[in-house]
Amino acid sequence: MTYRAPLKDMLFVMNELADLNAVSQMPGYEEATPDTAQAVLEEAARFNEEVVAPLNRAGDLDPSSWKDGVVTTTPGFRDAFRQFGEGGWQGVLHPSDFGGQGLPKLVATPCIEMLNSANLSFALCPLLTDGAIEALLTAGTDEQKAVILPKLIAGEWTGTMNLTEPQAGSDLAAVRTRAEPQGDGTFKLFGTKIFITYGEHDMAKNIVHLVLARTPSAPEGVKGISLFVVPKFLVNPDGTTGARNDVHCVSIEHKLGIKASPTAVLQFGDHGGAIGTLVGEENRGLEYMFIMMNAARFAVGMQGIAVSERAYQHAVAYARDRVQSRPVDGSAREAVTIIHHPDVKRMLMTMRALIEGARAVAYVAAAASDAAHQHPDEATRRENQAFYEFMVPVVKGWSTELSIDVTSLGVQVHGGMGFIEETGAAQYYRDARILPIYEGTTAIQANDLVGRKTVRDGGAVARAICAKIAETEAALGQHGGAAFVAVQGQLKRGREALEAVVRFVVENAKGDPNAVFAGSVPYLKLCGIVFSGWQLGRAMLAADAKRGEDPSFYDAKIATAHFFGEHILSQATSLRDAIVAGAEPVKAMSVDQF
Amino acid sequence: MTYRAPLKDMLFVMNELADLNAVSQMPGYEEATPDTAQAVLEEAARFNEEVVAPLNRAGDLDPSSWKDGVVTTTPGFRDAFRQFGEGGWQGVLHPSDFGGQGLPKLVATPCIEMLNSANLSFALCPLLTDGAIEALLTAGTDEQKAVILPKLIAGEWTGTMNLTEPQAGSDLAAVRTRAEPQGDGTFKLFGTKIFITYGEHDMAKNIVHLVLARTPSAPEGVKGISLFVVPKFLVNPDGTTGARNDVHCVSIEHKLGIKASPTAVLQFGDHGGAIGTLVGEENRGLEYMFIMMNAARFAVGMQGIAVSERAYQHAVAYARDRVQSRPVDGSAREAVTIIHHPDVKRMLMTMRALIEGARAVAYVAAAASDAAHQHPDEATRRENQAFYEFMVPVVKGWSTELSIDVTSLGVQVHGGMGFIEETGAAQYYRDARILPIYEGTTAIQANDLVGRKTVRDGGAVARAICAKIAETEAALGQHGGAAFVAVQGQLKRGREALEAVVRFVVENAKGDPNAVFAGSVPYLKLCGIVFSGWQLGRAMLAADAKRGEDPSFYDAKIATAHFFGEHILSQATSLRDAIVAGAEPVKAMSVDQF
Repeated sequence: MTYRAPLKDMLFVMNELADLNAVSQMPGYEEATPDTAQAVLEEAARFNEEVVAPLNRAGDLDPSSWKDGVVTTTPGFRDAFRQFGEGGWQGVLHPSDFGGQGLPKLVATPCIEMLNSANLSFALCPLLTDGAIEALLTAGTDEQKAVILPKLIAGEWTGTMNLTEPQAGSDLAAVRTRAEPQGDGTFKLFGTKIFITYGEHDMAKNIVHLVLARTPSAPEGVKGISLFVVPKFLVNPDGTTGARNDVHCVSIEHKLGIKASPTAVLQFGDHGGAIGTLVGEENRGLEYMFIMMNAARFAVGMQGIAVSERAYQHAVAYARDRVQSRPVDGSAREAVTIIHHPDVKRMLMTMRALIEGARAVAYVAAAASDAAHQHPDEATRRENQAFYEFMVPVVKGWSTELSIDVTSLGVQVHGGMGFIEETGAAQYYRDARILPIYEGTTAIQANDLVGRKTVRDGGAVARAICAKIAETEAALGQHGGAAFVAVQGQLKRGREALEAVVRFVVENAKGDPNAVFAGSVPYLKLCGIVFSGWQLGRAMLAADAKRGEDPSFYDAKIATAHFFGEHILSQATSLRDAIVAGAEPVKAMSVDQF
Repeated sequence: MTYRAPLKDMLFVMNELADLNAVSQMPGYEEATPDTAQAVLEEAARFNEEVVAPLNRAGDLDPSSWKDGVVTTTPGFRDAFRQFGEGGWQGVLHPSDFGGQGLPKLVATPCIEMLNSANLSFALCPLLTDGAIEALLTAGTDEQKAVILPKLIAGEWTGTMNLTEPQAGSDLAAVRTRAEPQGDGTFKLFGTKIFITYGEHDMAKNIVHLVLARTPSAPEGVKGISLFVVPKFLVNPDGTTGARNDVHCVSIEHKLGIKASPTAVLQFGDHGGAIGTLVGEENRGLEYMFIMMNAARFAVGMQGIAVSERAYQHAVAYARDRVQSRPVDGSAREAVTIIHHPDVKRMLMTMRALIEGARAVAYVAAAASDAAHQHPDEATRRENQAFYEFMVPVVKGWSTELSIDVTSLGVQVHGGMGFIEETGAAQYYRDARILPIYEGTTAIQANDLVGRKTVRDGGAVARAICAKIAETEAALGQHGGAAFVAVQGQLKRGREALEAVVRFVVENAKGDPNAVFAGSVPYLKLCGIVFSGWQLGRAMLAADAKRGEDPSFYDAKIATAHFFGEHILSQATSLRDAIVAGAEPVKAMSVDQF
C-alpha cells in the first residue's frame, strides 16, 4: 500500500471553500495563483509519494536509536531530508528574504498534510523547525535572523522546542532551567528538558534548540520565563559552526508510536554550561513560545488529518481487495469484496466524512491566516485574525481527537489482519495516539478555546461564526433537495446547540469555572463537529453547482456531506447536554470517590 | 500500579441489580448464596491480584515466542496456570460431574472479569478452554466427555477453537479443511487454520483442538461443516496420552497487543493426516461451534469491561499522584494533583460510567442465563433465554467498542507519559484493540442482533425490554430528585429512540437490507447505551435506598448514573438519526466513489 496525495480533494477545498483566488489577489501572494498552487501541490505529491512515504513502515520497524549520546535515525531518513531541503520544502511558507518561497499558508497547508500522510515521524522534524523559524522571525535579533534563518529554511539545520521538564508538562510556570548571563551577551544554561522531538539526530549539520529558561533576576511563574537559542554546535557570525555546545542527549524514549521520531531527554550544562543567546526580551519567552506553539498546534492538527487520510486509503485498498461473504441484499451468489458490505461502507464513510470536514475547516482557517497577514484592509485583517485564532485550538484538538477514531476504524475494516503489525494499519493507530497530547493536550486546547477565545470577548467571535453558519443553512434550504434540507436541519440544530453552549460558557466562566471547564473538551468537540458540518454544507452546495463537470466526484461530495449531517453533526445536541447539564455530576463527585 | 478487584462494585451489581439472591434459590444453585459468592470473589481477587496481575507487563515485554514449532510462553505463565488449575478456577462454571464447581454464571462472571483485568493475554487460554468445554458438554460423545472434560476442567489440558482459514474469516461457508473417514471411527484432517489463540504453548500437557472441517460427502456452504476433536497428543481411553498428532504450529503472529497470548498458524495433516474424532453429528459443526462462540462472545465482552477497569484504575492512580497546574477555581495557589482538574474528572467519570453501565448489563444478562437454565418455571426459562440471547451481541459488541475509548482516555489522562511504553497505559490501549474484532467483529455481532435477535421475532423481545425500561423511567420520575428526573428524561428519549429504530429495522430488513445493515452497528451501540442507562438508572434507585449505609459509595453511584445520562445516554437520538436517516448517503455512495 502506497500513499496517493488526494490532490483533487485538496484543490476542491482550496478553490471552492477557502477561496484561493481571493488569497492570490492579496499583496505579496500574487504568484500563488490557482495554477501555480496546483503545480506546487503536484510536485509535493510526487516527492512525498515517492521519497517520503516508502520510509514510513521502515521507521516503525527500525526506529531511531541512541548510543553514547548519538542518535541514529532510520536508514533513508537522512537522504530524504537532504532532498526535502534541496527541494525547498522547508521554505514553502517562509519569507523569500531568508531563502523561502513565501507562499500563502493556504498553499503550504496541503504540502504539510502530504508530508505528514507520507510519514508522521519524518514530518515532525520540519514541523518543529517551522516553529523555530516562526519564533526567530518574530523576536530574533538581526544576527540570529541573518545567521540562523537561512540555514533552517534551507533544511541544512533543524530546530527544536524545549519546554517540558520532568515537573513541568502543561504547566510552564514550573519551568526550572536556569540561564546565567556571562556579561558578554551570552548566557550559560543549566537544566533538563524532556520530550524533545528530534532533540538529537543525524539528519542535519546543526540543531538549533529554542529553550525556555529563567534568568537569575526573573520573577516566579510564567512571567519569569525567557527564550534562548542554544545551538548544538556554536555558530560563528559567518554561519560556520564551531565547538560542540554543552547540550547532550542522555536518552530517547521507548514509545507507543512515531518511533522513528527521536524523543530526547536533553541535559543542558552538565559540563560547564550550555551557551545560548537571548531571543527578544528577557521574561517574554512564553509569548514568543506561543508563536511557535500556535504554528505548531495548527500543524499538529494537520497531522491528525494526514494520518487519518493515510489510514483511510489503506482501509479502502484492503476493502477493495478482500473477498468475504455474500452481499446482504442477495445481489450475488458468491462472496464479494468487503467494500460492498454496508457496514464496511459506513466505516469508510465515517472516516472520509471526518477527514473531509476537518480538512475543510483547517484550510479555511489557513486562508484566514493569510488574509490576517496580507489583506489590504485593516478591519478585514483583524476579523480574519480573530477567526483564525478561534480556529487554532479547534483544528488542533478536533483533528487530532478524530484521528484516534479514524485510525481505529482503519484497523477495524481490516478485521483480524488489522491487529497484525505486518498489515500496517496498526501503525497509524499507534502513531496517532500522541497527537491529542503533544503541543498541548486537548484539554489545554479547550482551556484556550474557553478562556482566550470565547470568554475574553464575551463570545463575540463565536456568535459571528454562528451567524455565518446560519447563512449556509439558508442556502441549503433554498436549494431544497432532500439531502440538502436534511443537512440544513442538522446544521441548524448543531448551530443552536453551539449558541446555547457559548451562552453557558460566557455566563458561567467566572462564577462557576468548575462547571465550565468540565465541559471544555465537549465544547471543543462541538465546535469541531459544527464547523465541519458547516464547511461540508458549503461543500455540497459548491459540488452541486459544479456537478456536471464530474458527476461521480461531486456526487460523492454531496453524499459525504449528507452522511456527516446524519451520523456526526447529529451528535451536537448530546454534546450540548453534556456541557450544560453534565457538569453537575462531575462537580458532585469528590476526588476521593474515584 | 497493581490491580485491585472492585469487589464492592461487583457485589453491588450482583445483589442489587442482578438479584443473586433469586438465582441462589433456583434448583442446583442452592450453594451460591450471597455469602458464598462473596467468599468466592474474595478468593478470586486474591489469586488474580497476587499471582496473575503482576505478569501482565512481563507478558508484553517478553511475549510468547516460536522456535521450530515450539511455543514458549512468558516466564511465570506456566506456573500461574498450574495454580489456576489447582485452585479450581477453570471449573467455576462447569458441572461437578466432571470436577467443576457448578456455580451460576452470575458468580463466574466477576471471576472472569477479574482474571481478564489481571491479564488479558493469560486469561485467553481459560477463555478458549471454556468454549471447548461447552461444546463437548453439548455435543461430545460419552467417551469424549468422560476422557477429555475432566482434564480440561482441572486445567491440566487446554482447548482451542479452529475456525478461521486464510480465505475464511467471518465467512465460515468458505472453510476448506478436509476430514477423511478412516473406517475405524476416526478421521484424518488436512488443512491450515490461522489466528488460533493458544494453538500451541507450554502451559499444559495436552491441547484439545476443536476444528471445523468438511467430510468428503459434505454439501457446500455452512451446512457441510462438521466439528472434530483433534488433540495435540493422541488420547487413550484411560485418559493417558500417546503419540504426537500431525498438527503443527508453523508460526505465531506479531501483533499490536495481547502479545503474551500466542496466535498460531496450525497446519493439520502435513505428515500423513491429523487424527480426529467427530463431535456430535456430521454437518452440524456450525451449530456446535455457535455454542462455543456464544459462551466466548459473552466472555470477550467481559474482556472489554475488564481491560477498561484496569485502565481506569491505572489512570486514577496517576491522576492522584501527578501534580500539575493550579485549580481553575483559584481554590489553591499551588499546583494540585491533576485529579482536581475538571477535565481529568470528566475523563475519569466517562471511563467509570461506561464500565459500570456495561458491567451491570453483563451481570444482569448472566443472571438471565442462569434463570434460563435453572428456573423451575418453563415460561420464565424461555423468557430469560430470549433476553440473554438478545444481550449476547450487545455485551460482546458494546463492551469491546467502549474499551477502545476507555483505554484511549486512560492514555490521555497520563498526558505525554501515556505515550511512553514504560508507563503501562499504552499496553491496555494496544491490547484492547483486538476485542471488537475476534470472536466475531462488531459488525458480525450487529448482524446477529438485527437478524436472529430482532427481525426473526418481529422485534418482540426488543419491545419487551423497552417496556421494562419504561418501568424504570417511572420509578425515577416517582423519586423526583433532580438527578433522578434528569436521568429519567434521558432514558425516556433513549428508549423512544430505540423503539423507533426497532420499528425501522423490523419494517425494512426484508425490503431494504442495505439500509438496515448500514445502521446495524449504530443499532448495537444504541442498545448498549440505552441498556447501560437503564441499569444505571436502576443502580441509582438502589443506591438511594441504601445510601445511609455508606453515603460516599452510594452517592458516587448516583453521580455516575447522572453523568452517564447527560454525557452518554444523550447520544441516543444521534444514533437514531444515523440509523433511520443516515442509510441514504451510504447507499448513494457507490464502491468506486471511495
